Amino acid sequence: MTSAATTPTAANLPKVELHHKDHRNYPHGVAFMDGQYLPMSEAKVSILDWGFLHSDATYDTVHVWEGRFFRLDLHLDRFFRGMERLRMKLQYSRDEIEEILANCVALSGHRAAYVEMICTRGGSPTFSRDPREAENRFIAFAVPFGSVANKEQLEHGLHIGISESVRIPPQSVDPSVKNYHWLDLVKGLFDAYDKGAETALILEANGNIAEGPGFNVFAVTDGKLKTPAFGVLPGITRQTVFDLCGELDLSVTRGDLACNELKNADEVFITSTAGGIMPVTRVDGVAIGDGVVGDITRRLMDLYWKKHSDPSWSTPVLYR
Amino acid sequence: MTSAATTPTAANLPKVELHHKDHRNYPHGVAFMDGQYLPMSEAKVSILDWGFLHSDATYDTVHVWEGRFFRLDLHLDRFFRGMERLRMKLQYSRDEIEEILANCVALSGHRAAYVEMICTRGGSPTFSRDPREAENRFIAFAVPFGSVANKEQLEHGLHIGISESVRIPPQSVDPSVKNYHWLDLVKGLFDAYDKGAETALILEANGNIAEGPGFNVFAVTDGKLKTPAFGVLPGITRQTVFDLCGELDLSVTRGDLACNELKNADEVFITSTAGGIMPVTRVDGVAIGDGVVGDITRRLMDLYWKKHSDPSWSTPVLYR
Repeated sequence: MTSAATTPTAANLPKVELHHKDHRNYPHGVAFMDGQYLPMSEAKVSILDWGFLHSDATYDTVHVWEGRFFRLDLHLDRFFRGMERLRMKLQYSRDEIEEILANCVALSGHRAAYVEMICTRGGSPTFSRDPREAENRFIAFAVPFGSVANKEQLEHGLHIGISESVRIPPQSVDPSVKNYHWLDLVKGLFDAYDKGAETALILEANGNIAEGPGFNVFAVTDGKLKTPAFGVLPGITRQTVFDLCGELDLSVTRGDLACNELKNADEVFITSTAGGIMPVTRVDGVAIGDGVVGDITRRLMDLYWKKHSDPSWSTPVLYR
Repeated sequence: MTSAATTPTAANLPKVELHHKDHRNYPHGVAFMDGQYLPMSEAKVSILDWGFLHSDATYDTVHVWEGRFFRLDLHLDRFFRGMERLRMKLQYSRDEIEEILANCVALSGHRAAYVEMICTRGGSPTFSRDPREAENRFIAFAVPFGSVANKEQLEHGLHIGISESVRIPPQSVDPSVKNYHWLDLVKGLFDAYDKGAETALILEANGNIAEGPGFNVFAVTDGKLKTPAFGVLPGITRQTVFDLCGELDLSVTRGDLACNELKNADEVFITSTAGGIMPVTRVDGVAIGDGVVGDITRRLMDLYWKKHSDPSWSTPVLYR
């Protein structure tokens, strides 16, 4: 190819085609947008949507396990709170969104699903730059359940690398509004890979541990649990650990977690809707405790999965 | 609607449709993706692309004025530098991208165009969560030229509100990598609207002025220009002001710009590819200087637009 812009001879312009042809693979699943249920290959957003162009969006992710949503109410609470803080408004009620999510799962047929609900700023029908004039947009989808840790990592524990990347501070973006601003986390991930680790933790502005790409972290020392308090997403699985600690009579606090405190802990685990409670047995190449999955971590993991069939923690999906 | 998830009776599931129907309006223009030139209504990205889900993308915007790209080389330099810093790689060379951008403009027919080139992380063909395994993706488009300031604001000056929102700091996201992390700027915009202003400036972590949604800012005091140095996008129009100041023998510095320094300046203007050099005559409801567009601002605006036909600053688009 030569440059048409710099070679001023008669240009043969290519044709504008009517329809986009996309040869990518998409996971099996069902999405909802604009009143339609669609295969994942059709679930696309305009590159002019401010959810893409300005990452002006909030979302939440809930999972389905053995045909049951886990703690759907807490995820819906957070999603609606996030929209309110971003001054977004949808034409769907909470009940309607609950039904749409259930329909996506049922239509997908997945008994173990990763389900996402998204509200983007959308765009203005008159192409105004004013976000107050935008029509906000709702998208939902259900795809197969995914986990930060694979089977082997769930058994033997993850190896985490600590990056110097600093999590976007609350003065810039409210971390309680679940958002797609991930470049700090992606940088952390590359830093961790460079160290030979499998995933990353990044810092908050004061140099303490914040969180990782899509997960919170807990350290267990002398039988007591601690998780970062400042500048992190108040994760639903993190909240679930607080609740499980209540049932198991374990002490858990929110506070500053220094890097050394984490490295010298007896046990470490991470929490995410994508995988639940997942053990960490190495940090920056050094074993945590005995280098095996700890007792308290195991007890919490067991109780976490047991709760998935408890009707007060889960809701059945009607598949037909 | 009643909730299928909470009403366990026989559910009539809706149908999964084959194709997405989209009744939105799109601006006239031409996009390029996956080897095709397409109308803007077809330019859509999968909701699973990490450019959307993680705002893991970089981009650049160049404009065409009277059929000529303005300083395209500088925009391409920054775009390629950004991709390198994010560890992204495209299958297109710089010359090929230049040709694609020119084709988008020529096919759109627009003599005044806003042209964007985007690289997203894309996704992994095996649905891995590892960004190293992603196939990065290139998208470009040309739509009608747009401006932060409308005609009346260009004549009489904008009214800007200063928000307490803090621009995402460089320790979190490298501001020299042009990115879509805008929630801090969008918050600033809502704050400014609440004060009755037309657009916003937000702060850097030390409380000085940083930048606004899509623009840099300059203050003129006693004939000397100053623009924030820390934590801001090194804008091409900002760079152009430095270059024009060289030609006009004006003094310009990069440094901390306190809120009061801005408010007490003789002249204020903002700079963006979307509109060029645009005057500001009110900040937080108070007039800047005499409340009219200043002399130095006018001289810079005039020279800025004059440069658009200068072959050493611009490149012609071949329309057919």
